[in-house]
Amino acid sequence: MTRSLIDDDKANTFMVQGSSRTSPEDNGVRKYVEKVSSVSGVSKSVIALAGGDPTGLENVYPPTVVRDKLVEVIHSSNYNSYCPSGGLPQARAAVARYYANHSSVPLKAEDVFICSGAAGALDLVFASLCNAGDSLLLPEPGFPLFRSIANALNIECRYYQLDPTNHFSIQLDSIRKAKNERTKAIVVNNPHNPCGHILSSDEMNAVVHVAKELRLPIIADEVYEEIILDEESKFISFLSFAREISVLKISSISKLYVAPGWRIGWCVIGDKSDSLQDIRAVMKRLSMRLIFPCSLTQAVLPTMLENANLQRQQVTRLIRQNAFTFQSIIQSAHIQGLDVSIPEAGLFLFVKLDPNMLTTISDDVEFVDHLLQEQAVGVVPGQAFGIKNYIRIALTTSKSNMEQAAYRIIHFCKGKCA
Amino acid sequence: MTRSLIDDDKANTFMVQGSSRTSPEDNGVRKYVEKVSSVSGVSKSVIALAGGDPTGLENVYPPTVVRDKLVEVIHSSNYNSYCPSGGLPQARAAVARYYANHSSVPLKAEDVFICSGAAGALDLVFASLCNAGDSLLLPEPGFPLFRSIANALNIECRYYQLDPTNHFSIQLDSIRKAKNERTKAIVVNNPHNPCGHILSSDEMNAVVHVAKELRLPIIADEVYEEIILDEESKFISFLSFAREISVLKISSISKLYVAPGWRIGWCVIGDKSDSLQDIRAVMKRLSMRLIFPCSLTQAVLPTMLENANLQRQQVTRLIRQNAFTFQSIIQSAHIQGLDVSIPEAGLFLFVKLDPNMLTTISDDVEFVDHLLQEQAVGVVPGQAFGIKNYIRIALTTSKSNMEQAAYRIIHFCKGKCA
Repeated sequence: MTRSLIDDDKANTFMVQGSSRTSPEDNGVRKYVEKVSSVSGVSKSVIALAGGDPTGLENVYPPTVVRDKLVEVIHSSNYNSYCPSGGLPQARAAVARYYANHSSVPLKAEDVFICSGAAGALDLVFASLCNAGDSLLLPEPGFPLFRSIANALNIECRYYQLDPTNHFSIQLDSIRKAKNERTKAIVVNNPHNPCGHILSSDEMNAVVHVAKELRLPIIADEVYEEIILDEESKFISFLSFAREISVLKISSISKLYVAPGWRIGWCVIGDKSDSLQDIRAVMKRLSMRLIFPCSLTQAVLPTMLENANLQRQQVTRLIRQNAFTFQSIIQSAHIQGLDVSIPEAGLFLFVKLDPNMLTTISDDVEFVDHLLQEQAVGVVPGQAFGIKNYIRIALTTSKSNMEQAAYRIIHFCKGKCA
Repeated sequence: MTRSLIDDDKANTFMVQGSSRTSPEDNGVRKYVEKVSSVSGVSKSVIALAGGDPTGLENVYPPTVVRDKLVEVIHSSNYNSYCPSGGLPQARAAVARYYANHSSVPLKAEDVFICSGAAGALDLVFASLCNAGDSLLLPEPGFPLFRSIANALNIECRYYQLDPTNHFSIQLDSIRKAKNERTKAIVVNNPHNPCGHILSSDEMNAVVHVAKELRLPIIADEVYEEIILDEESKFISFLSFAREISVLKISSISKLYVAPGWRIGWCVIGDKSDSLQDIRAVMKRLSMRLIFPCSLTQAVLPTMLENANLQRQQVTRLIRQNAFTFQSIIQSAHIQGLDVSIPEAGLFLFVKLDPNMLTTISDDVEFVDHLLQEQAVGVVPGQAFGIKNYIRIALTTSKSNMEQAAYRIIHFCKGKCA
């Protein structure tokens, strides 16, 4: 390169090209969340039901005993150091104890890795299993964060199908079809976001059978395990199949303890006869990168888990109440084209749209955009999850907001049934 | 696959192979830190000088006003939500303000990304610049965390050389030689860990010139910017060159605020005429993965930065005192084979060994292993940083520990000069 070129001002301000680890289509949910929070030019106060942030619920907070403990931890100055790789030993042990009765193999503290939320745990697990160019099997429809995290690691995403005509149950053959020779694991999200389905014991057995057949471990994202809305449905952790198949279970405090900002999640390894020993070694080394969650909030994790019961009653009661409130208002109005059913679990309604009835709206994306502009209600279109003509409505708000949102949606739909 | 095979117990417990995103050689520093913390069979109490954890200093804590603010933040329940991508706006703005006088381009909140420590910021920056197979230029000797983070992203590490005969200054031609056609950036660590050198204005100009010539942005890891030990040396941020070259500056609270466990770091983008606009877009999308640091500690970052001055005086005084204490004890003993000089900056002594004088020790690794076993003093060998026959000794301990460590090392060395 000649001197004259490098002194050229144009040369000095060359544009730097970003990597292809992301795409503008990444994590559509988060994009809608940010769109809703920054919307302008609407005449009403915005009701933000795009993200599933439990801090939007009325009068629910992290338990007082947890906040008191956190203050004690701060004053002690005993938890300001770097954490050991994998997390604070007492936090890891508390998670292992918490799941002891839900696992078919004994769990030790070393089976648990404390991470920056479930997202951090997914990142750790994906990176430990897959090189660039390897692939993961993901559910479709499904939570787009899986893809964002995989893309950032140059991991290929391949999709198996859920059946919208049958409670979004897993289409087993589509798992077999999606697998290629570089597939490293099956990601199962149970309870499912956004569909709200809880896998039955039979469904789980069938998935485990396919995983064994394909010789793949199961990455079980079970972050909604605590938010069971249908009292007839029973949530079973994939850890209870850990004698049969290698399981990497992911969960977090975000939903139940109303503290997603604290960013505490974990991966629990359930494996018989140490089939994941190499994965453990890689996870331990990856944890040495020092990208771990805050030591202070790690230190109160045992206190959190000890207070799960009361918190669970509170949060699920409010979510259930919001779901039924919304459903009954919509049903009373006899709105055509909106099919609101109560999910078995999770923080969301996944509402089916019938575009034939909503004649001036072409699809879910248009529905969502117009609803935000005209009625200041922010929700997420099904297409952000890979399925058309559904909308996801978060239940994490006050009862009065939920009612107000239902009335606005009725008003909106009536205007669209031209 | 036949049914008989998949029902075979051996088939069911197939071993899962981990990715090659790590290697057993990764982050040797962290391995020594954990080795020291778990050492057994030594007769004395262990003096752990392997990691640079400022919480080991005597009677220094995060500022009281910061801890009080953190308690207030917890009681307010206003900071339990997910943070917006890139971090809490007030935290980003506080960092931008903090560096306003150190940058040649104006800094806005949007130029700052709050991350899980400097490690999280490095991960974000590396991922935004490099695809799998791209390369980064790293200093040798240097901090092995760079390589661990790059490896996890399947990024190739290529090394430029520092000159141990000239204060570990950068050998400019080695930058040119290290570059290949897939190189995306030059990583500069200033002040340098473990060498403790601060780049002079002339050295920085020369590096900037090479970066312009090679059309590469500079990733400036400046985490030791606050810990200046030599009052004659002046630290200059690469942000002051942001009119000439694209700069991604990395720093954190870990060292100065004695809170590495809180995991707050950041990347600051300094670029003229938006040459990094694509990188910003990728960083924003990567931030949507929800792997961000705790919202509570983010919320107190403005308070921290407002209290930097007092904290800086306290911490640097203690580090400097420990450095001189250690040096004077070693020098008084006239130990041959240990060359202890006071670093210009940082938390470490980087001590040169002369194996010719320590006749029964073959190299730095053996020195470190034997020192731990025989004298219960934990330090890190130069080879963990890519250079032989140095040892890195952390200054982050009490004065009495520092004295004790010096006496034990003298005793150890005398025994090795057979």
